[in-house]
Amino acid sequence: MDMHTLTRELQVRNKSKIVMLVADGLGGLPMQPGGKTELESAHTPNLSALATLGVQGLSIPVKPGIAPGSGPGHLGLFGYDPLTYQIGRGALEATGIGFELQPGDVAIRCNFCTIDAQGKISDRRAGRISSEESAPLAISLRKIKIPGIEIFVEPVKEHRFVVVFRGAGLGGNVKDTDPQAVGVTPLDPVAEDAASRRTADVAMEFLRQAKDILKSHPKANFHTMRGFANKPDLPSYEQVYGLKAAAIAVYPMYKGLARLVGMHVIGKASTLDEQMHVLRDSWQAYDFFFMHFKYTDSTGEDGNFAEKVKRIEELDAALPAIASLKPDVLIVTGDHSTPSYLKSHSWHPVPTLLVSDCCRPDPHTTFNETTAITGGLGQFEAQYLMLLALSNAGRMGKFGA
Amino acid sequence: MDMHTLTRELQVRNKSKIVMLVADGLGGLPMQPGGKTELESAHTPNLSALATLGVQGLSIPVKPGIAPGSGPGHLGLFGYDPLTYQIGRGALEATGIGFELQPGDVAIRCNFCTIDAQGKISDRRAGRISSEESAPLAISLRKIKIPGIEIFVEPVKEHRFVVVFRGAGLGGNVKDTDPQAVGVTPLDPVAEDAASRRTADVAMEFLRQAKDILKSHPKANFHTMRGFANKPDLPSYEQVYGLKAAAIAVYPMYKGLARLVGMHVIGKASTLDEQMHVLRDSWQAYDFFFMHFKYTDSTGEDGNFAEKVKRIEELDAALPAIASLKPDVLIVTGDHSTPSYLKSHSWHPVPTLLVSDCCRPDPHTTFNETTAITGGLGQFEAQYLMLLALSNAGRMGKFGA
Repeated sequence: MDMHTLTRELQVRNKSKIVMLVADGLGGLPMQPGGKTELESAHTPNLSALATLGVQGLSIPVKPGIAPGSGPGHLGLFGYDPLTYQIGRGALEATGIGFELQPGDVAIRCNFCTIDAQGKISDRRAGRISSEESAPLAISLRKIKIPGIEIFVEPVKEHRFVVVFRGAGLGGNVKDTDPQAVGVTPLDPVAEDAASRRTADVAMEFLRQAKDILKSHPKANFHTMRGFANKPDLPSYEQVYGLKAAAIAVYPMYKGLARLVGMHVIGKASTLDEQMHVLRDSWQAYDFFFMHFKYTDSTGEDGNFAEKVKRIEELDAALPAIASLKPDVLIVTGDHSTPSYLKSHSWHPVPTLLVSDCCRPDPHTTFNETTAITGGLGQFEAQYLMLLALSNAGRMGKFGA
Repeated sequence: MDMHTLTRELQVRNKSKIVMLVADGLGGLPMQPGGKTELESAHTPNLSALATLGVQGLSIPVKPGIAPGSGPGHLGLFGYDPLTYQIGRGALEATGIGFELQPGDVAIRCNFCTIDAQGKISDRRAGRISSEESAPLAISLRKIKIPGIEIFVEPVKEHRFVVVFRGAGLGGNVKDTDPQAVGVTPLDPVAEDAASRRTADVAMEFLRQAKDILKSHPKANFHTMRGFANKPDLPSYEQVYGLKAAAIAVYPMYKGLARLVGMHVIGKASTLDEQMHVLRDSWQAYDFFFMHFKYTDSTGEDGNFAEKVKRIEELDAALPAIASLKPDVLIVTGDHSTPSYLKSHSWHPVPTLLVSDCCRPDPHTTFNETTAITGGLGQFEAQYLMLLALSNAGRMGKFGA
């Protein structure tokens, strides 16, 4: 039996409040043998206080040894098996820039490229054209008209932009036109199934008009299309969990991921303080709050151990504001580890802390990668965290009699 | 999504070296309440040094409570779900004696038996005939000729031998001819699917000729056929992991299992010392080395606690030779536990140690069944160990964006 089917059957509604605070890339590594991790190095009195009340463990984002991107990392935390629910590249790119995909939309990642007089690609990234130069070019493609199709063109960064086709009967299985090589012509968009034939035709017509619009540009005189993808069809938080859920995030990617599972994106916070204000102001209106904190990841990606430590301390300082609202369940976790040592997302399981009045506290009085090994939650796949949240909130009935 | 499909997509090639040292049957039990296990009793300074640098945990060979044979035990360690990839009995028997099966071969376990004047079985094991007596008899069956089929007959031990049919269109689904009872006639080989009809016909003809060859033997005047099996179709290490892999083993079974996943069996070592020489001499030529040490299992099977302790100490003494090669990832594990107390393979999870520069060390400074309980790897299914090995070696890209 599918876990979502079971969860739908067992869900119970009540007045409880659940807060999931996601410190992106929270888990880390020591910089040298015998050293401490970022979380172990940080001064975190408020996490320690929660650790004393709560239960901790290690969340495995996907499976042991798999380092996830933001998409699968968050889907796991949201309770959607990341191996079952995959977000196509185009849909994730659109989501990442805050584009609100609708059911049936096809999103495509596009790259400006340079073609020579014979139509062969001489530069797959148009000389890594700057965002300043490429954004107006992308916007110029909004002139393209195709009967029956609504077309959106959104600049991304440098040579990248996103195209979304909206209309009836647009399947998402179309092959990339990027030949992944120079000295050859771009490929035609080819449908990989019958349901995507119209999409391929629309893409072909788009490319024809784009070539004409771009032809006089010295570098970006054409573009390729990759990662064709429909909006993923994810059941909503309301359906699966019976939760009215809100997302309080600063960056478009995380707002977008939250929208894909039916969360309401609330507020316009650009700092952690502002996020706390949004949380307080919306406290009565929702059952579940996803709070996203980006900087534990970005500092890790930069390999800036000291700055990641500071960001963890910043997060720690914000915890009393959440605790003062007395959520029934408070979770602190991450979507994956981002050790400064590796300067990238990693596969290491993520320290995760859950506090409720019935969480069965473990003996730990601090919270980090080492204490979490022997925490009461053990090591568990992230996809089960939402079930733990619901149960701790009294929102799950008994399975079987 | 299947884990092998995902691994194929995420694999990255680099110059790293991975060593997996498998101490067969490594895990153990105390002989009396309050006692120590074999690994806890052994003096293992080198394992302790690695434990200080590394991360440990408990590997569950198949699922909790399942004691595996060598086949599933090693398939798990090699990253092949042992419940998905099963090796038929005949194929495992052939592999175990070092017979190199080719795709399409059918391997069959055969038992000499005694039949009476009415053709009814009076002894299913031909009076447990000795190997000395049975080997020439098995070899005498090599006289059997069947048009279009290449036939191999290999003695095993006592009443057992292996037959392999090689030829076109030989399916592996044929019922056993052993009726599992005396006083009845052997069964005819019956195909269980259309693709195996020819195999059943070939087996029938083989039995007809064998009866004639064996008829005058006082005990082994016939034989049964069991465990018909094609060579299992396992994707290779090269395909799944992008690893050029070598196996350094002493016993045919482990060489055979390694060959089934496409490892190169290298050297002709008959001692651990010689295995270390082979490792050193081949260091540049491969990415991954599977080193197999048999005696932690055989001493456990014998119930010889003291000897198993000594064998663990022998293994410990060999570790500096491996460490001196500076592998990027070094793993010490077992395919299952073989407690001297039980004199058999068991279901207990296996202490497993992984050392790399980014393994996230746990606080342990020794390595055994008890420390592994609170190790940073937690308890995990063996099939994920290869993913951890690859990630620690920088050989896995990120899943999703």
